[in-house]
Amino acid sequence: MITALSGDERSQAIADLAGWADKDGRNAIHKSFQFKDFNAAFGFMSRVALLAEKMDHHPEWFNVYNRVEVTLSTHDADGVSERDIAMAKKMDEWAG
Amino acid sequence: MITALSGDERSQAIADLAGWADKDGRNAIHKSFQFKDFNAAFGFMSRVALLAEKMDHHPEWFNVYNRVEVTLSTHDADGVSERDIAMAKKMDEWAG
Repeated sequence: MITALSGDERSQAIADLAGWADKDGRNAIHKSFQFKDFNAAFGFMSRVALLAEKMDHHPEWFNVYNRVEVTLSTHDADGVSERDIAMAKKMDEWAG
Repeated sequence: MITALSGDERSQAIADLAGWADKDGRNAIHKSFQFKDFNAAFGFMSRVALLAEKMDHHPEWFNVYNRVEVTLSTHDADGVSERDIAMAKKMDEWAG
């Protein structure tokens, strides 16, 4: 059973990331990524999709052209878990 | 220069598609696709991404797990054009 991070753990995890924040009105974290163009944006999404299948943990995301808006939360934990932080770190690494 | 469909042309085009409708508050059309799982949803998105690059015409879309919400409009035409209808038809074909 995966558990949600405590408030302190979550604040610290967000502080250690770049550009992530609590999402208004949701028990989740959010980041807006900007890429050079659609090719780069969808390339990024494809890498994350492979990771998502491997982790069996999937993002909520919105894409228009070069922008990808990502929301991460862990349904089973009813909050933000280590899985979300691990995925956020990989996204930051791949977004460059 | 690409031009927007007239009201009548657009209504007829929507009537000829399945599940597409005008999007509230936007000069655009919208459809919600449901797939078996994330693999199927992202497989669909990948096919559409390749088409989008070929057409140089890109969707707005939101994905969470097996659901893909698509909004289509043509910025240069300030409305819905034949490009959106062509993309919608391919999406319907690939969504099966």
